[in-house]
Amino acid sequence: MRFLIFISSFFVSIASFASQSNETNSTHPNLVLTKQGVSSMRANLGKVPLFDKTLESTIQLVKAEIEAGIQVPEPKDLAGGYSHERHKANFFTMQKAGVLFQITGEEKYAAYIKEMLLAYAELYPTIDKHPATRSYARGKFFWQCLNDANWLVYTAQAYDCIYDWLDAKTVNKLNKELFRPYADFLSLENPQFFNRLHNHSTWGNAAVGMIGLVINDKELIDRALYAFDIKSGSGVDNDGGSLNLQGYKEGGFVAQIDHSFSPDGYYTEGPYYQRYAMYPFLVFAQALTNKMPELKILDYRNGLLLKAVDALINQTNSQGEFFPINDAQKGMSLSSRELVNAVSMAYHYGGNDTGLLSIIENQNRVPLNDSGLNAAKAIADGRSTAFKYKSLELRDGANGNEGAIGILRSKDITLVMKYAKHGMGHGHFDRLGFLLYDENGEVIQDYGSARWVNIEHKDGGGYLKENHSWAKETVAHNTLVVNKDSHFDHNVKAADKSPGTPYYFDSSEGIQIVSAKELNAYENVEMHRTMAVLEIEELENPLVLDLFSVQAPGDTRYDLPVYYLGEFMSSNQKFEINNELSPMGTNDGYQHLWQEAQSNIEGDLMQFTWFNNRSFYTMTSATLAGDQVLMTRIGANDPNFNLRRDPGLILRRVGGNTLFANLYEKHGSYNYASERPLNLFTTIADLNVIHQSEGYVAVQFELKSGEKYQFSFSLNNKESNSSHILEKNGKSYNWQGVYDLKKLTE
Amino acid sequence: MRFLIFISSFFVSIASFASQSNETNSTHPNLVLTKQGVSSMRANLGKVPLFDKTLESTIQLVKAEIEAGIQVPEPKDLAGGYSHERHKANFFTMQKAGVLFQITGEEKYAAYIKEMLLAYAELYPTIDKHPATRSYARGKFFWQCLNDANWLVYTAQAYDCIYDWLDAKTVNKLNKELFRPYADFLSLENPQFFNRLHNHSTWGNAAVGMIGLVINDKELIDRALYAFDIKSGSGVDNDGGSLNLQGYKEGGFVAQIDHSFSPDGYYTEGPYYQRYAMYPFLVFAQALTNKMPELKILDYRNGLLLKAVDALINQTNSQGEFFPINDAQKGMSLSSRELVNAVSMAYHYGGNDTGLLSIIENQNRVPLNDSGLNAAKAIADGRSTAFKYKSLELRDGANGNEGAIGILRSKDITLVMKYAKHGMGHGHFDRLGFLLYDENGEVIQDYGSARWVNIEHKDGGGYLKENHSWAKETVAHNTLVVNKDSHFDHNVKAADKSPGTPYYFDSSEGIQIVSAKELNAYENVEMHRTMAVLEIEELENPLVLDLFSVQAPGDTRYDLPVYYLGEFMSSNQKFEINNELSPMGTNDGYQHLWQEAQSNIEGDLMQFTWFNNRSFYTMTSATLAGDQVLMTRIGANDPNFNLRRDPGLILRRVGGNTLFANLYEKHGSYNYASERPLNLFTTIADLNVIHQSEGYVAVQFELKSGEKYQFSFSLNNKESNSSHILEKNGKSYNWQGVYDLKKLTE
Repeated sequence: MRFLIFISSFFVSIASFASQSNETNSTHPNLVLTKQGVSSMRANLGKVPLFDKTLESTIQLVKAEIEAGIQVPEPKDLAGGYSHERHKANFFTMQKAGVLFQITGEEKYAAYIKEMLLAYAELYPTIDKHPATRSYARGKFFWQCLNDANWLVYTAQAYDCIYDWLDAKTVNKLNKELFRPYADFLSLENPQFFNRLHNHSTWGNAAVGMIGLVINDKELIDRALYAFDIKSGSGVDNDGGSLNLQGYKEGGFVAQIDHSFSPDGYYTEGPYYQRYAMYPFLVFAQALTNKMPELKILDYRNGLLLKAVDALINQTNSQGEFFPINDAQKGMSLSSRELVNAVSMAYHYGGNDTGLLSIIENQNRVPLNDSGLNAAKAIADGRSTAFKYKSLELRDGANGNEGAIGILRSKDITLVMKYAKHGMGHGHFDRLGFLLYDENGEVIQDYGSARWVNIEHKDGGGYLKENHSWAKETVAHNTLVVNKDSHFDHNVKAADKSPGTPYYFDSSEGIQIVSAKELNAYENVEMHRTMAVLEIEELENPLVLDLFSVQAPGDTRYDLPVYYLGEFMSSNQKFEINNELSPMGTNDGYQHLWQEAQSNIEGDLMQFTWFNNRSFYTMTSATLAGDQVLMTRIGANDPNFNLRRDPGLILRRVGGNTLFANLYEKHGSYNYASERPLNLFTTIADLNVIHQSEGYVAVQFELKSGEKYQFSFSLNNKESNSSHILEKNGKSYNWQGVYDLKKLTE
Repeated sequence: MRFLIFISSFFVSIASFASQSNETNSTHPNLVLTKQGVSSMRANLGKVPLFDKTLESTIQLVKAEIEAGIQVPEPKDLAGGYSHERHKANFFTMQKAGVLFQITGEEKYAAYIKEMLLAYAELYPTIDKHPATRSYARGKFFWQCLNDANWLVYTAQAYDCIYDWLDAKTVNKLNKELFRPYADFLSLENPQFFNRLHNHSTWGNAAVGMIGLVINDKELIDRALYAFDIKSGSGVDNDGGSLNLQGYKEGGFVAQIDHSFSPDGYYTEGPYYQRYAMYPFLVFAQALTNKMPELKILDYRNGLLLKAVDALINQTNSQGEFFPINDAQKGMSLSSRELVNAVSMAYHYGGNDTGLLSIIENQNRVPLNDSGLNAAKAIADGRSTAFKYKSLELRDGANGNEGAIGILRSKDITLVMKYAKHGMGHGHFDRLGFLLYDENGEVIQDYGSARWVNIEHKDGGGYLKENHSWAKETVAHNTLVVNKDSHFDHNVKAADKSPGTPYYFDSSEGIQIVSAKELNAYENVEMHRTMAVLEIEELENPLVLDLFSVQAPGDTRYDLPVYYLGEFMSSNQKFEINNELSPMGTNDGYQHLWQEAQSNIEGDLMQFTWFNNRSFYTMTSATLAGDQVLMTRIGANDPNFNLRRDPGLILRRVGGNTLFANLYEKHGSYNYASERPLNLFTTIADLNVIHQSEGYVAVQFELKSGEKYQFSFSLNNKESNSSHILEKNGKSYNWQGVYDLKKLTE
């Protein structure tokens, strides 16, 4: 009802707006919005439901803010605190108000922005750096330049929308007293922030560049695109990244594109940070496309910026949540504001892939610009199709030759294995680690970061101490820990130098394989993990086979953690529980683990079944004499209760060259309203290692129904015409190509 | 597409059916279905979407079972095992097939039932009692008579549907060799099962009665309605309930109605078991309504059976899940098959309350009978309205004078306090305990039972050892533990004898109050808890005020647990964590708790904030010198990992007469995609006890914005015209009636 009233009152405003505006003098908006785009949005009002709906909710949001009044407080607080959250709300609101002014023509929006900007112009000369000193680059309105750059990226858009509406004196004042000095502050005065290759710097570049475009300041635009001469720099940033700018060769927006993404669109810090960085990348690219089309920025590096959006979408689970590799708060998803902008832009500029429309439908809003209008129109025309999530290997490194992540999807199963670059200050020591999902979410989890973003209760919303002492450590991940020590002795520099080594990736239907090596994480230890997602005709769900081969000196102690989610059901092994708990160690993350129970494995098979959501899951391990399995719980040495009390199990083995062979099976179902369980036991009867050496791994597994399968894999020769032969107990097995899966008939 | 095909192929079958059936000879179906009802269902096919949809999915389910073939295995397994689950699937399928035969007229359904019944008739004489010996009343096809009674309740319906279709010889054989002996087995041969007042016996009564109605056996019908002479009996059932039938006066279906429900429709074992019992109550009542309308069973005790459905619906949270008081597996909900039958029946026979239609819409299916058709038609006609969940006190006891549970609902908050009867073998020692919900689910939880129903991994799906040692104990609940001992010294008989004492219940808008006493749970200790849900104009959500008053000897040790759900955010108190954990005790549930941290409270205020789902919650406590707060975790002494590792806090105090005054506030929000926190700190600045005595409790609380409120309550006089006066620090406070809430102006 309200919506109808709004629409009808609308055309009146637009009519009056059209008669007021002086078409001949006006050049703005020309940053993210364009004059032509605004005409088109106006012409389509009331005709495109998703666009109209977003517009209406934006009007309501801005209305509430305008009613609350202008507040430009003295900068004081960290994230989560009043002044921080207020300044943040201000820039979001100004950007929205600018768009609303353009679309509706109602001057209240322009007046609101003008008043707000003048208040900032008053404040700016009176303040020094933000009083909080914890950042390597303290900001003005915020505790770190990063947030100030956010402010400028959004505010530049608002300013563009009212630029022609403002009187010349006000424009002159704002340019001279607020925007130009602010842009200089964020660049010249903070080279350690502006001139690096880093997501923070991307924001800085976009901020300076966008305000440069608005006020037509070529110097700022050049600085944004290509950085400036660097004089000095030292120390590390808040995340431990180096700030040493001596001898630094590159910087600026173009260099960020060159270095931040791999040719596959993968971002070395992982999807959580990629999502954050995509906004300045894309919004500045949008502005450059409008104002400097000759740059062809969206075509740069074979259209890399839009390819990066596709890579990002493919790094999500069935709930649209990003894989939480490296530092990442779980739950960040395709419905974030950054992706609302990115996906519509990818649709609009990237060839109108109708699969993207289904994602936009789920987002349930569009950006209020050309891209959003175009996407919303296509949805209204019924052109949306399901997005086709792919199995793919995303190579890391600017040239695509520094490791990768492998993503295998089969029916409801999604497997992710990580053998990429370390990811700099936000990287985790998790080489060859994996994550497993099904249609209900996490099955075997990555912990993510130890952080509550923007939650003041938790150390101001920043990274918690336990992020370093737990979340980054190897034992917090589903990968091998050697001698209770994290990979690379948890040294970021060493890890950054040495990416993982992709070996084989195959996304063929029915048998999908990802295989990679890590030769440098530990001295004298060569690790090679091969994971396969197999569709077995007798089984309801694909099986996940995990063959972790290690070459190492004798008496090496191995811990292989598996962070299953859910409740333990049963095991074929007898666990002894501990009624006195002590931390499992003093360092490398072990200090945060309780050992709730342990079992000295009997026989050569360990099976462990758990329940989560509506399904059962069983891990089957081929074990050796002396192997142990431990049941662990996160939470020791956690004085502020920063860690989730999640369970895990650890397979423990002492030995030299060895193979950890595991199968993961999802089976059956149960729901609490019918209380009817189906297939609550695994269908796997046995798992045996047939062969393990530097050259090969081979296992056999047997179903309870009697069928036997053998999987053999060459660790050194992946040529499709290579021939291989293995012998065991007088039998010989031969095959061609890197792997062989056969059903045995005996 | 398939649906359309189905509909069209349908009318062909019906036409041919009508020409085949011999209207003059047929009297069946006349149990749950009637001939008239079947005609009406047929006449409406293709016209009532929800009915058609349920029919189609039923056809698919039965199709799959028919294709799988008849399997009537030798009884061997416990719940979750093959033979158990097979026999269970058989009776569900036969009942469905019977209905499908009537509606579609397709003989394959009748033939399937006939073949299945003949297989059972073959099996029956060859077997003794089920080999598993763990039940007090071993069954034939199942390990307990209870499941056999289930079988007969469902199978009687199937039999009724094909009765007229069968040849006389088959009917004769089935009646003589299967049904009559089986009915005698479940009654005469198992009086300890059949003749009690108990939900098991309700199933037994319905089973015997329904087969009696089908085969027109007056003796069985009488036995079902009124039981039979009881000769002997001793011992206890599997849940610890007494089986001593000496001197037993009553039994049978009518007596079950007399004794199982309070006049408000509350069932003393709680909603989880009420849900289970409702099916035999209602389906037998339906059959009696059809065949013996003169009994007016649905009018009996002022229409109690339908009132019980309303009571049951009101005992659910915003997800439609039953409050898990007493032994209850969480997640059981209005979408269970029992409620699918019950809610449509309540609509059909209970005056067409359109609010019930919204619940049926959520159930997304209807029973395939008159009630279901009627409800589905009303939904198709757009008559559904939102169900109005009520604040109400549900009295316990056959006469309504044995305690109660109080349910307060205000905006998104639902508070439940329990001061009912113990609930027999399934009762928990939780007098004056409470549960708190909001729109996202549990805020302060009741543990529920320690059981995975039907999950064979977990001790065959039955109650786990930890149900007794943890879930029933007082410390597992949000109520007061005195001297580390459970209520009634965890003696079921003592608890059963002595219900809680309701004191005051008020569901007025804005200020809702529940208040009750427990005088017998501990010797020399009088407990009186008053909880109020207050809408305070300055606050976004209602406040929950909790005043737990105790009169007891000096040096009594009090533990008041609060099982909040979610992650700890912060506290105004400093916690010391424990890096060596031991169980907190050896008995009464303490043996299952780890003490993760503790704080000797400084000052006279304890505040504790946590986060769950998308909201923040803060508990504010007025504390005394010497008070402690402990942070606990469930999981010690749990050899099979049967317990969830949930957190709790315990307020610990040593003293005599005292008052525990607490406030619970839900505030703010956060979501992981926007990462924007709102109101993440409590608005409560202070909470003070102004007065506490045998006669009165009074507290003041102050908001951070400066407003002060006082709540005063008379513990002994609740007359509306009573006058009260309290003095404190020279000030006097006076009011009329049991309580007073005032905003203070100073």
